[in-house]
Amino acid sequence: MDKPLAISMGEPAGVGPDIALQLYARRAELNLPPFCLFGHGAFLAERAARLGLDIAFAPVGPDGAMAAFDSALPIAPIDGIVPDQPGQTTPLSGHVVIEAISAAVAATLRGSCRALVTAPIHKGALYQAGFKHPGHTEFLAELCAQGGKPKLPVMMLAHGGLRAVPVTIHVPIRDVPGLLSKQLIVDTVRVVAHDLKQRFGIANPQIAVAGLNPHAGEGGNIGREDLEIVGPAVAQLQFEGYGVTGPLPADTLFYPLHWAQYDAVVAMYHDQALIPIKTVAFEEAVNVTLGLPIVRTSPDHGTAFDLAGTGRASPKSFLAAIVMADAMTANL
Amino acid sequence: MDKPLAISMGEPAGVGPDIALQLYARRAELNLPPFCLFGHGAFLAERAARLGLDIAFAPVGPDGAMAAFDSALPIAPIDGIVPDQPGQTTPLSGHVVIEAISAAVAATLRGSCRALVTAPIHKGALYQAGFKHPGHTEFLAELCAQGGKPKLPVMMLAHGGLRAVPVTIHVPIRDVPGLLSKQLIVDTVRVVAHDLKQRFGIANPQIAVAGLNPHAGEGGNIGREDLEIVGPAVAQLQFEGYGVTGPLPADTLFYPLHWAQYDAVVAMYHDQALIPIKTVAFEEAVNVTLGLPIVRTSPDHGTAFDLAGTGRASPKSFLAAIVMADAMTANL
Repeated sequence: MDKPLAISMGEPAGVGPDIALQLYARRAELNLPPFCLFGHGAFLAERAARLGLDIAFAPVGPDGAMAAFDSALPIAPIDGIVPDQPGQTTPLSGHVVIEAISAAVAATLRGSCRALVTAPIHKGALYQAGFKHPGHTEFLAELCAQGGKPKLPVMMLAHGGLRAVPVTIHVPIRDVPGLLSKQLIVDTVRVVAHDLKQRFGIANPQIAVAGLNPHAGEGGNIGREDLEIVGPAVAQLQFEGYGVTGPLPADTLFYPLHWAQYDAVVAMYHDQALIPIKTVAFEEAVNVTLGLPIVRTSPDHGTAFDLAGTGRASPKSFLAAIVMADAMTANL
Repeated sequence: MDKPLAISMGEPAGVGPDIALQLYARRAELNLPPFCLFGHGAFLAERAARLGLDIAFAPVGPDGAMAAFDSALPIAPIDGIVPDQPGQTTPLSGHVVIEAISAAVAATLRGSCRALVTAPIHKGALYQAGFKHPGHTEFLAELCAQGGKPKLPVMMLAHGGLRAVPVTIHVPIRDVPGLLSKQLIVDTVRVVAHDLKQRFGIANPQIAVAGLNPHAGEGGNIGREDLEIVGPAVAQLQFEGYGVTGPLPADTLFYPLHWAQYDAVVAMYHDQALIPIKTVAFEEAVNVTLGLPIVRTSPDHGTAFDLAGTGRASPKSFLAAIVMADAMTANL
């Protein structure tokens, strides 16, 4: 507990910086764990002024963060040009956004920070600045690989006891059946089980695996994948000793009394995992990346350009992401 | 209000008959509207005795149901052989199950009953008895066609203000993109809008249409169908004057504050519609068939063989189906 959390500031045209600054201003009331904000100092000061926040800044980096946090917001300064233009992206700021993530990952990997909380980025703005990764999570996986082969990053949405993991993520529904394989499901469940033990302190995690097709394929009447891919993956995992059940029909799996029997639900595609958790956890779910050598959480919302600079964005999910990163690393 | 509801008894190995009988026994307490149960008289009496229910039966058919209901359960008797074997299907009873549905539909079509509530069937058992339809709903559509071309039956799951309609239903995920067409979405939304007006008394229904792909395709970055199929369908419906919005990302569409802005959500496939409603409406959702010349509802659960004959099946969804059928036809 003697290290701060790292927060990357995210897209400056969005609400990420706003919420980070607003939460810092309420640090005592919310009893926040100390954190260091990786970003552009002058921009952050301008945005704080725009929001009417009376905040002092301390450009001390992670190593000075614990001492500074009570009296001033610790910044790990990233040089560059970042205009304070809520709602308007510009290629100018892309360099700082990317470097803030890189520096925050490096600080967490070397142990100067306990865990990483990332504010939302906007891929479109970053592509203009030369960003080449399909998303935030894949970029983090590559940074964490440190020259080696990237690990399989696994996305989990969590709210209380409901933890949902999509095996495939940002791909068209058309491509999902072809992308699913026994190996991918096995690898994903192994990562989930490992991290539920290591990061969440669950000694013997119980994991439900949803079927791909309606009614989990009804014994082959509605598609073959649940018989030929999902079922064999579950069987192999059971053989290896994992507490895994499935394939289960996805619609009845998310009855509260049903999912509550499991520590996590592994779903086959994006909406199958995200619909139930967003239905239940209005604005309060946390996105956790499993399978990385560092703990990383993020709020479960995007840049919300229309709310940037207004102070009206809900801080609930960002706060939940900080609380979860803190809890997952409280004994580090 | 001077006509009874029709209830078809459903699969005798399942919980449908149990719940119908149990609800009748509580008719006064629950203030139930009169109904006529289409099924096998001797079997129903045996099942009632097994459940310890002290019920009198009146084989009076729909026309005698209003007078009999207070003192005895009105039965529209269907001849045949129906063993009282909870949990064990047999081809023997298939004929009665099918005829009960046919007779209940005929009685509703000719106006002897106000609406139809169907107890769950078990397709496997019926296929052994020569049933040739992909499901309950398609069979009803054919019965209602009365020799003409069947109408497009549209399945809606409803709970309070949340009404979800899948455009494709019991098909593999692999086949969904190919089955979707602008015309199918347009036809489905027209049926939904029509029935929301006619059956639910909503003067100017507002309908949300979910995108097929994650984030509704992110402007073509994640699949083309939302640009090329769903979007044009929504545009045509808007041109025709319907209150339709979409394609909307399915995951955030089911935030309660989001769906509450719409009278119904039209989703592209089974789990996209059913996951959110089952997440919210634990055991209390109602399955409503739109697009038919009659009102038809059913409980949102299956035959639950393991609970048949025990009296422990939850009656909530079946009760909700009766209440909804009654409300939808209260002015008939």
